[in-house]
Amino acid sequence: MRQIYTFMKDTLSIIAQRKSVRHYTKIPVASEQIDILLRAAMAAPSAKNLQGWEFIVITDREKLDYIGERVATARMLLMAPVAIVVCGNVTKYTGESQMNWVVDCAAATENILLAAESVGLGAVWTASYPYADRMAVVRAATGIPIEIMPLCVIPLGYPVKDEPVKDKWRPEKIHYNQW
Amino acid sequence: MRQIYTFMKDTLSIIAQRKSVRHYTKIPVASEQIDILLRAAMAAPSAKNLQGWEFIVITDREKLDYIGERVATARMLLMAPVAIVVCGNVTKYTGESQMNWVVDCAAATENILLAAESVGLGAVWTASYPYADRMAVVRAATGIPIEIMPLCVIPLGYPVKDEPVKDKWRPEKIHYNQW
Repeated sequence: MRQIYTFMKDTLSIIAQRKSVRHYTKIPVASEQIDILLRAAMAAPSAKNLQGWEFIVITDREKLDYIGERVATARMLLMAPVAIVVCGNVTKYTGESQMNWVVDCAAATENILLAAESVGLGAVWTASYPYADRMAVVRAATGIPIEIMPLCVIPLGYPVKDEPVKDKWRPEKIHYNQW
Repeated sequence: MRQIYTFMKDTLSIIAQRKSVRHYTKIPVASEQIDILLRAAMAAPSAKNLQGWEFIVITDREKLDYIGERVATARMLLMAPVAIVVCGNVTKYTGESQMNWVVDCAAATENILLAAESVGLGAVWTASYPYADRMAVVRAATGIPIEIMPLCVIPLGYPVKDEPVKDKWRPEKIHYNQW
């Protein structure tokens, strides 16, 4: 536990410092670290508390490479020791609520990214949804059934270097009471 | 700043403790606190770094009540001193990427909820999207143009009481390498 606490910082700093990390060392990521990220994911809010998310942890080198070779935006998988695929079970969401799987899985994904930053892991959100071709590759690699939709693949590993943090503060995006 | 740091906890604890808070005291929320939440929101990742989000801070009692009276799932607005509406600008997302406004705004929303928890504010995600009737109410209250889609309204205030945290850890949702 010592190592984990070493990296702990307050939430506002972690939110501000989170960045996309695309280069990873060969140092393996302990399964306990992955569990911490998955606990964070499942602590996310979900519409009507349906928790319609599912997670696939990929450590199989062939599967990581399979996706990394076929999805240009997920090339980092070729270097990553592990990845988490965040999926939604669309059968949980009916009628007008159908698109809530995207909302819920996005919230869970953000929790994973923040938890990764807080324990010193590098991570990056690589979108599967809404791209039919990328989703097909993830389906082929993981064997998920048709009712399970992959939102994204998150490569994970210890960062090779300090990556820059983008300043995205745009006060002009804030409106008061009225557009 | 003192008061803010009093509430600071490590990120994993804040993620685990975040809960939906639906009852608020009449204590006003300082605009500096709202700015902290909006900074957190804009620190979220976004597809192709498009940052297609917009935020409406509502403090106008009539507008808060207008939405609270018309959207059953957002009744808490009748009690809340302030709310943030998280919106997506769909003109930023073209072709196959169109649905990314939902993804990006959901990540920004989760950051707001975690930042609120970390500074001692109560908050709850009340969905506007994907519900046509709720979105129409938010549009009427705020005057957002047609290309701006409201994802959710987040009532905010100091919590009346300690709200329980749900244990949503479901290890059966974790799959290894293969479904």
